[in-house]
Amino acid sequence: MILKKAKGKIEFIAVGSELLSSGFLETNSLFLEEKLEELGWTLSFKTVVSDRLSDLKEAIREAGKRSWLILMSGGLGPTEDDRTKQALAAVLRRRLVFRPDILEKIKERFESRGLVMPSSNRRQAYIIEGSEVLDNPHGTAPGLWLKARNRIYVLLPGPPRELKPMVENQVLPRLKSFGRVQLLKVVLRVTGAGESWIEDQIRPVYKLLPSGLELTTLASPGDIQIRLSMPVARNLDKARKDFNLVKNEICRLLGDKIYSLEGESLEKVIGDKLTRMKKTLATAESCSGGLLASRITDVPGSSNYFLEGMVVYSNQSKIRELGVSENLLKKKGAVSQEVAEVLAANMRKKAATDFALATTGIAGPSGGSKEKPVGLVYIGLATPEGTVVEKNLFRGDRELIKFQATQKALDMLRLKLIEIEREQNQ
Amino acid sequence: MILKKAKGKIEFIAVGSELLSSGFLETNSLFLEEKLEELGWTLSFKTVVSDRLSDLKEAIREAGKRSWLILMSGGLGPTEDDRTKQALAAVLRRRLVFRPDILEKIKERFESRGLVMPSSNRRQAYIIEGSEVLDNPHGTAPGLWLKARNRIYVLLPGPPRELKPMVENQVLPRLKSFGRVQLLKVVLRVTGAGESWIEDQIRPVYKLLPSGLELTTLASPGDIQIRLSMPVARNLDKARKDFNLVKNEICRLLGDKIYSLEGESLEKVIGDKLTRMKKTLATAESCSGGLLASRITDVPGSSNYFLEGMVVYSNQSKIRELGVSENLLKKKGAVSQEVAEVLAANMRKKAATDFALATTGIAGPSGGSKEKPVGLVYIGLATPEGTVVEKNLFRGDRELIKFQATQKALDMLRLKLIEIEREQNQ
Repeated sequence: MILKKAKGKIEFIAVGSELLSSGFLETNSLFLEEKLEELGWTLSFKTVVSDRLSDLKEAIREAGKRSWLILMSGGLGPTEDDRTKQALAAVLRRRLVFRPDILEKIKERFESRGLVMPSSNRRQAYIIEGSEVLDNPHGTAPGLWLKARNRIYVLLPGPPRELKPMVENQVLPRLKSFGRVQLLKVVLRVTGAGESWIEDQIRPVYKLLPSGLELTTLASPGDIQIRLSMPVARNLDKARKDFNLVKNEICRLLGDKIYSLEGESLEKVIGDKLTRMKKTLATAESCSGGLLASRITDVPGSSNYFLEGMVVYSNQSKIRELGVSENLLKKKGAVSQEVAEVLAANMRKKAATDFALATTGIAGPSGGSKEKPVGLVYIGLATPEGTVVEKNLFRGDRELIKFQATQKALDMLRLKLIEIEREQNQ
Repeated sequence: MILKKAKGKIEFIAVGSELLSSGFLETNSLFLEEKLEELGWTLSFKTVVSDRLSDLKEAIREAGKRSWLILMSGGLGPTEDDRTKQALAAVLRRRLVFRPDILEKIKERFESRGLVMPSSNRRQAYIIEGSEVLDNPHGTAPGLWLKARNRIYVLLPGPPRELKPMVENQVLPRLKSFGRVQLLKVVLRVTGAGESWIEDQIRPVYKLLPSGLELTTLASPGDIQIRLSMPVARNLDKARKDFNLVKNEICRLLGDKIYSLEGESLEKVIGDKLTRMKKTLATAESCSGGLLASRITDVPGSSNYFLEGMVVYSNQSKIRELGVSENLLKKKGAVSQEVAEVLAANMRKKAATDFALATTGIAGPSGGSKEKPVGLVYIGLATPEGTVVEKNLFRGDRELIKFQATQKALDMLRLKLIEIEREQNQ
């Protein structure tokens, strides 16, 4: 009866007025999305609704119209503003029934900690007529599993530490019987190109998309993700072939612009390459102010290849630490091709590394001029064969300019490492 | 006509399939909730919906049934899966009309960067018949403001850096005409204490809370926010007095643990102090890997007081750059009180600054031992009067340990600057 609905929609409703006030973010859905993806399913809607009974009923009613599986979290607590069970019971016109065995469990929970159960917790011993109880070993609120009107409603407690084990141990095993679907999925990460450029490049691929394959791009400055996903119910080999055809065609069209096929960060990608190639790295930063070193050292094990960084923020430090001449600073300015080159080359020598990256630019918001506007950043890469410098003009606020400078620097190194690997393999 | 609806419901719809897949969290609503609270308003519903046209239309239709103000973000980009305008136009049975002036602006945006506009961006020059255009100085997607069927629909771009200024500068001024309520609000930021300690300290305040004043704490490792908010419709003077009574009592109870009364970051607070006191700063980082310098240089104008940073990641760099002796490294190890002290003191000398901060520790996940576990971090502060070192044991993953180390370092400097200011004022 319900099996045929497994292709329909699934949705999640998070209950709680606090989730609608600033400073609180609902995160249970992230966990549920991950678990559903393992079954090859995705959410179609995610709603956050206040504790108000009328709003709650409205949200439940809408969900019931369009989805076969409705997951809800929150509103199962002992206080007056916990109304999820009441709302669902009202929408389905079912009664709430008192379950002495649940009350006993709640009482025991309090007693095991030497406490007396407050009378308000009695509310939690009521369940909706016809529902199965999902035990909650980590809290007082039991969950509920309810089949009604060709739908499945799953009521889960709000606190993640209670919800997660309940989903893992009691909800997923029940859901698995409805699904035979596998999800093919890949996240391609791209840098060094804009979203529209990428869109233009991969346009031919849209004609190849097999039915069910979803292609979405997610762009932020300096970083674009291309996500492919495709739920497969049968004929997996054929589906995988179709899926890989699309993936490989995108890879061919974008080439080295794709820095990761597994979703890893750029710093992780260059970290893996440096480790594999047994090469070392140092950084000399002006405008990026330490962010480049910080990103590189976010990667566990980075101490194996990252030896040293400098943040030469003042002119004095550029002169003293990295041998930039006062004359050059006067003639060309700190933000110049020439200074970027000296910083990178001398950092490499000083730290005795294989590579060094250097940044110098204007992160803003002030300090720009017509010739040298905010966002102008020179990035130098020193290698055993010499030093190259690229000129960039980034947009955005100070933090975004810093980020894009580091993204570009890491990408210059990545492309160089690819080049070296290719030469070695020839 | 619409004014009487201002007491009705408000909702937000975030558009984007990526927001329904694991790993992506919708955050624009946090910003919108905060801004709405300033008007004394809260959201009743928050929906995340996929890019599918049918789902989108469904979500818009439902919202239109129950809310007078519908804010939407996302789906205004140049790609095939950006369909918010199409969906709203279909629901309202309005046409999309081409606006050559918008196309010109988008073209200019590309040209100013020496690029040719890809043809896909043409989509963004269509608006819904009858809507007002909200300029987007930070991207190609214009927003839309549309009054229709006794409702207001506001279409905003998805990227926060585009959405935020559009809301501040174009949406809020329009919305203000609908509200009469003022919101008293303050965010106190605290570091150097745990949530339960703070909860215990401020417990007496709960008895003072006037009706309508909401007190919430939001804790993350190394940083706790105490948020007070109170919507006031009349008798503003009395309300303000009650509100300040609570605020002042919390300030008295927590004292210097509160680093900010305005919500600013810790790096901004110390930046303002250093600027005012005309003092300078340098950093020598091992385990924090550049994050300390990066946070300090996130503050506009930081080049006035931050002169130089070093990331002495390898032992060799600690020896060569900051005079740590090989003998000391052998005897005490790089992660030690003594090394933190040498790093801070010698960094201060080398950079010729008033203050220097140094970190050395084990960020993990590997590299820990029984004597020196993951999370052990020594932080040194060198001042004109000498150098102090504090030993810390932080919890969490690598990035969280890095963050807490920088938070503690900045706080040590903050407390020192407060002490100096007090002495000068005596």
